Amino acid sequence: MSTTLKYEEKQLKIVGTRPARPDGVDKVTGRARFGADYNLPGQLIGKALRSPHAHARIVSIDVSAALALPGVKAVVTRDDFAEMPDEMAPVGELMINFRDVTRNMMAREKVLYDGHPLAAVAATSESVARAALALIKVEYEVLPHVIDVVEAMRPDAPLLNENQYTQGVKPKPERPSNIAKRLEFGRGDVAAGFAQADVIVEREFNTKPVHQGYIEPQACLASYSADGQAELWTATQGQFVFRAQCAKVLQMDVSKIRVTPTEIGGGFGGKNNIYNEPLAIALSRKSNRPVKMVMTREEVFRATGPTPGANVRVKLGATRDGRITAAEAVLNFQAGAFPGSPVNQASMCAFTRYDLANVHVVGNDVVVNRPKVAAYRAPGAPIAVLGVESVIDEMAKKLGIDPIEFRLKNAAKEGTQTYYGPKLGPIGYVQTLEAARAHAHYRAPLGPNQGRGVATGFWFNIGNETTCSLNLQEDGSLTLLLGVIDVAGGSRASLSMMVAEELGIELDRVRPVIGDTSSLGFNFLTAGSRGTFAGGMAAVVAARNLIEKMRQRVAKVREVPVEAVAWKDGRAQPADASVAQFEPMTLTELARMGGKTGGTMAGHAEINAQGAGPGFGTHIVDVEVDRETGAVKILRYTVVQDVGKAIHPAYVEGQMQGGATQGIGWALNEEYVYGADGILQNPGFLDYRVPVASDLPHIDTVIVEVPNPNHPYGVRGCGEVPIIAPMAAIANAIENATGVRLTQQPFSPPRVLKALEGAGKAQG
Amino acid sequence: MSTTLKYEEKQLKIVGTRPARPDGVDKVTGRARFGADYNLPGQLIGKALRSPHAHARIVSIDVSAALALPGVKAVVTRDDFAEMPDEMAPVGELMINFRDVTRNMMAREKVLYDGHPLAAVAATSESVARAALALIKVEYEVLPHVIDVVEAMRPDAPLLNENQYTQGVKPKPERPSNIAKRLEFGRGDVAAGFAQADVIVEREFNTKPVHQGYIEPQACLASYSADGQAELWTATQGQFVFRAQCAKVLQMDVSKIRVTPTEIGGGFGGKNNIYNEPLAIALSRKSNRPVKMVMTREEVFRATGPTPGANVRVKLGATRDGRITAAEAVLNFQAGAFPGSPVNQASMCAFTRYDLANVHVVGNDVVVNRPKVAAYRAPGAPIAVLGVESVIDEMAKKLGIDPIEFRLKNAAKEGTQTYYGPKLGPIGYVQTLEAARAHAHYRAPLGPNQGRGVATGFWFNIGNETTCSLNLQEDGSLTLLLGVIDVAGGSRASLSMMVAEELGIELDRVRPVIGDTSSLGFNFLTAGSRGTFAGGMAAVVAARNLIEKMRQRVAKVREVPVEAVAWKDGRAQPADASVAQFEPMTLTELARMGGKTGGTMAGHAEINAQGAGPGFGTHIVDVEVDRETGAVKILRYTVVQDVGKAIHPAYVEGQMQGGATQGIGWALNEEYVYGADGILQNPGFLDYRVPVASDLPHIDTVIVEVPNPNHPYGVRGCGEVPIIAPMAAIANAIENATGVRLTQQPFSPPRVLKALEGAGKAQG
Repeated sequence: MSTTLKYEEKQLKIVGTRPARPDGVDKVTGRARFGADYNLPGQLIGKALRSPHAHARIVSIDVSAALALPGVKAVVTRDDFAEMPDEMAPVGELMINFRDVTRNMMAREKVLYDGHPLAAVAATSESVARAALALIKVEYEVLPHVIDVVEAMRPDAPLLNENQYTQGVKPKPERPSNIAKRLEFGRGDVAAGFAQADVIVEREFNTKPVHQGYIEPQACLASYSADGQAELWTATQGQFVFRAQCAKVLQMDVSKIRVTPTEIGGGFGGKNNIYNEPLAIALSRKSNRPVKMVMTREEVFRATGPTPGANVRVKLGATRDGRITAAEAVLNFQAGAFPGSPVNQASMCAFTRYDLANVHVVGNDVVVNRPKVAAYRAPGAPIAVLGVESVIDEMAKKLGIDPIEFRLKNAAKEGTQTYYGPKLGPIGYVQTLEAARAHAHYRAPLGPNQGRGVATGFWFNIGNETTCSLNLQEDGSLTLLLGVIDVAGGSRASLSMMVAEELGIELDRVRPVIGDTSSLGFNFLTAGSRGTFAGGMAAVVAARNLIEKMRQRVAKVREVPVEAVAWKDGRAQPADASVAQFEPMTLTELARMGGKTGGTMAGHAEINAQGAGPGFGTHIVDVEVDRETGAVKILRYTVVQDVGKAIHPAYVEGQMQGGATQGIGWALNEEYVYGADGILQNPGFLDYRVPVASDLPHIDTVIVEVPNPNHPYGVRGCGEVPIIAPMAAIANAIENATGVRLTQQPFSPPRVLKALEGAGKAQG
Repeated sequence: MSTTLKYEEKQLKIVGTRPARPDGVDKVTGRARFGADYNLPGQLIGKALRSPHAHARIVSIDVSAALALPGVKAVVTRDDFAEMPDEMAPVGELMINFRDVTRNMMAREKVLYDGHPLAAVAATSESVARAALALIKVEYEVLPHVIDVVEAMRPDAPLLNENQYTQGVKPKPERPSNIAKRLEFGRGDVAAGFAQADVIVEREFNTKPVHQGYIEPQACLASYSADGQAELWTATQGQFVFRAQCAKVLQMDVSKIRVTPTEIGGGFGGKNNIYNEPLAIALSRKSNRPVKMVMTREEVFRATGPTPGANVRVKLGATRDGRITAAEAVLNFQAGAFPGSPVNQASMCAFTRYDLANVHVVGNDVVVNRPKVAAYRAPGAPIAVLGVESVIDEMAKKLGIDPIEFRLKNAAKEGTQTYYGPKLGPIGYVQTLEAARAHAHYRAPLGPNQGRGVATGFWFNIGNETTCSLNLQEDGSLTLLLGVIDVAGGSRASLSMMVAEELGIELDRVRPVIGDTSSLGFNFLTAGSRGTFAGGMAAVVAARNLIEKMRQRVAKVREVPVEAVAWKDGRAQPADASVAQFEPMTLTELARMGGKTGGTMAGHAEINAQGAGPGFGTHIVDVEVDRETGAVKILRYTVVQDVGKAIHPAYVEGQMQGGATQGIGWALNEEYVYGADGILQNPGFLDYRVPVASDLPHIDTVIVEVPNPNHPYGVRGCGEVPIIAPMAAIANAIENATGVRLTQQPFSPPRVLKALEGAGKAQG
């Protein structure tokens, strides 16, 4: 099966329009079934016991009193899960260390963060389960902890894992370290580059972990059968990846677990990882009853992955005429309690908007006593880009060049050599910069204490393993069975639209459905902006496969060669009327006669989609800074982005607006607040402040479409790019409004006020 | 896609063995989820209001008081469903009259039987729903009713449908009639045949409706979305057929209804038809809430289809040396309130065990004021065969020929011309007769009041539309997604076994799962003993399709031509080591590299299976008759049957034993008892007596295997045949024990006693 399909320019009837969303009504009427909406007869409620310490050795766990409590049907601890080898193992194209996975879902030797689970109970009610947790006696030996990334890198820092030696350093270090891995990327000669520079700017930035803030807490329901088979319903971005991980840690055959993905109330990368799922299956296995586990918001904050906090240093050199001669960055990323921060992607995204001869990036993946980090839209990129685009802005100002102009002078284009590997293909970065420069927003007047900022972002976008089936029903309507989870509500729409376009039929005739793991072959996570790209490619493959089968059927029925049958405008027609003539046949006619002429017809796709097209975006933001309180108000916001092709422009705009909104929250208010005791102090939406409607202006969008040559409709993807630039754009806007450069995220009122005071620019 | 696969004799490793059943543990531990085990948040409970009259005109229905009751969220009546044309419309290869379907699920002009639904309510609890039913005011004009088939055929009988004129009669009748259709089959010259006969036997038989007696009452849960899409969970023998019917009566696109089949607690033909399903969807549509409807046992008896009661006349002529010269039958079948009894199949099954030159069969499909009949294992055949095999037995006795010998003398064989169309292909009827004759049972001594009976049965078996997908998982285990419902628990096992055999792997690596209507293309009902035949053919097609894809993948990876790759013993090997040599690759190795080498691999099948092989069985039964009470005790029972190939012999034996058991119940005790008022008097298992364990001896089985040439493993099917012969075999045994020929089913103690008394053979 081909895994790329070339872009073909053609007249479109459905792709590019804005039909009503197929998931909308169910979501607004409450009919959509999220994780917590699933129940089974006789189910138990599972709850996890969580560490009250940031770092402690587990001396003993005594569950006897909990087990004796009436209504308690099972308890699991570390003893219920097998040890896993300390190595990277493949799950699809992911590489996962199951030693860490099994320890993160259930502490073994030590608890490593506030909220780390170390036991779980299943009981007949939530109140009994909670009472049982209180009866579990754990003896801890409390250890010193470390939560700051810079402190954790010090040789004398408390060690989370005494057997961890920094990878990527030669020779192998003699002492263990919290630095799990050191990465290096580069090209050219940075020292020589800086020597050529007329101006050098260097800055250090610090960011805090922020959470994806999905509305729906993690929720799952598991049912294990005594014959060794399990069913799992869970809110996930990847039913197949969850299945693979559960199978591994529970030592089951993959096909013996059936994972049904529920509707998902937001993911953004935060639902790529298993947490309660294997615990629920293990509890079900022990109790012979279905077990439901729903996290509280507090559990979500304490124990699921936020994006990392980080320490970032960026150094840039440029000539007076605006050519960047050298770029350098050091990215120190918190991984949380186990290795695996997105410092790798962040390192690659840091400078890949610019055509640079001399680059050097070092990334450190550092464990700290915090929950293990997870992906969050363009994982890591916004953090690196806060540093780089702040310094770019400062450099432009120092050189007296318009910031968009400065970026254009150095912009990456088709053929630009990246510092991490490939040359870039056809991309739309320049087009987004030019569209931003041409936008009325960029020339609108500003008032006092107001400032404008610009920043840009890049994300790879990805393909990967994808499957789908397209079943022609007996009345000519179609079911599109998809393996990619529809995290954002858009892939069901856009994939159906591509199918309707291919078949030449009304969109309303195609019903998209997300399949469980038993109904299709392996699909990678919905992540990396791959849903519409890879899912769309699979949908097109399936549609073309169905067309091929329909042509064969028509050829059989009409007694003409297959080559004589063309599929056009929703029906089979003579390919060349002068060669073979026959009565055309519509999809509906074909569907009706399917059974009698050899069976129903279906298209299938099992592909590994290749050829993802990089995405670029340019953001413009106007802010007003209150010099008395330090409050920053977003006055106007414009997102310009190259998405390749917007299959359903309203969804694409929604992605762009949503990414910007989350980026605004990240920039202005969101942060994890830990006490000196290493305990999270704000595990709830009252104290962890996400943007609300009144914080935001209408976010304007400009879609740029430079087709991806490796997708039949030119799709690149759109979900990651829009979160990358906001933090930097807002920092630049605040600097423009106040003259003060902020380097400590979030730019919350106290921090902004402190910075203004430090610069003597506060008021009142 | 090919729709027949030829039989190939080969060494088998898995097919023909008796592995543990894949559904067993879930069923005995209670984990299996039947219809009533499904629930949705916010669901309402739906209940139907049912007619208390056998026949009445509905003058008015006033639901206002019910609607005003707090907790009542919706009421539906005839006004909520569109009128449907009075014509036969295709659903797959079924032809269905939707005028009748819509009237049976919800009465329109008239109620036609005790229990006929005429309104349904959805309320927040069952008690509120019941209270609401009591508030619905219906004004009836009660009409004379008719429930006996012979009475219903009289010209002066009360008419159920004033617009019904007997079909199949020329010229078109001038007056309407309860006879919906008259069928005629035959060959040769019956009058001449009787003229050649030395002996003629003629008898009339009467049978009562009996119920399939499935343990699980009909249960469904429906959820309709405001955007016009619905989900339905229901216990069904055909998720696709239910979807098609619901779509039709609710005027929806087929793809807008997703039907998920639940585990099914018995069907036997009784779960081929929609009852509450469209009502639940309509109530959900009106209330915007999910609606659950579970029948009580009383509702099951009053309103779901039993098998018909009938009046049957059979006439047989034979020469002194045992050659049948003529055979004639008239079959008058109750259809229930709407046409569609299985008199058609019964007519064809009546004599198709014999090679007859002169045959004539007339069938009448007659409406009566009873619930519309449904299929029940080999629909109609046991009724016709009770008559024919009783008369065969009487004839053999008159001629002084052993009853098996007499049947052998006249037995159908390969090449026998049927009286309804095709010539028979290779069949195993003679083999079952010979195996029965050779069985120790046939020669065992009998005591006083004991008698032995023999009878035989024939069923077509069928193929039809079938789909499945076989997904190779990343660890080399497989998911077999099936479209055929596993009514009896055997198809999941036997289809997985054929897949494991094809692939050369352990059975435990194949997990069978039944798909919902969104996951596969159309499948016909699991009916007519097609599951293992057609489902198995599809599974083999899918397995071979997967093997083909694996060979292609190995060829690509090993860089050899596809022709050089053979699949043997669970791995890809050089087809001819002298031509191309390469390292073999196991299924698991292939699965692991699937993603990286082009995507996961899957086999798919969308077929219309052709070439079903007829099945024949011979039953031997010993009974003891209590001349004081009329009670008949089954002493010994042996089922001999040609199944083509027993994929999983234990399941096949279970089918044979189960069919015989149901036939024994039918013969001895089961019947619908109606009062003179047309009201069912025994709607429950206390008064409707099915056989219990203490009624039965161990039922011995002999599997005969004459391969079906049109199936890769020779499968014929096995579920229908074993219910056909028991009634006749028991009648013959009673006659053998007492000298009294019973012609009124059931042969319950009062009836047997009365017959003995009539013949002066009762005791005490």
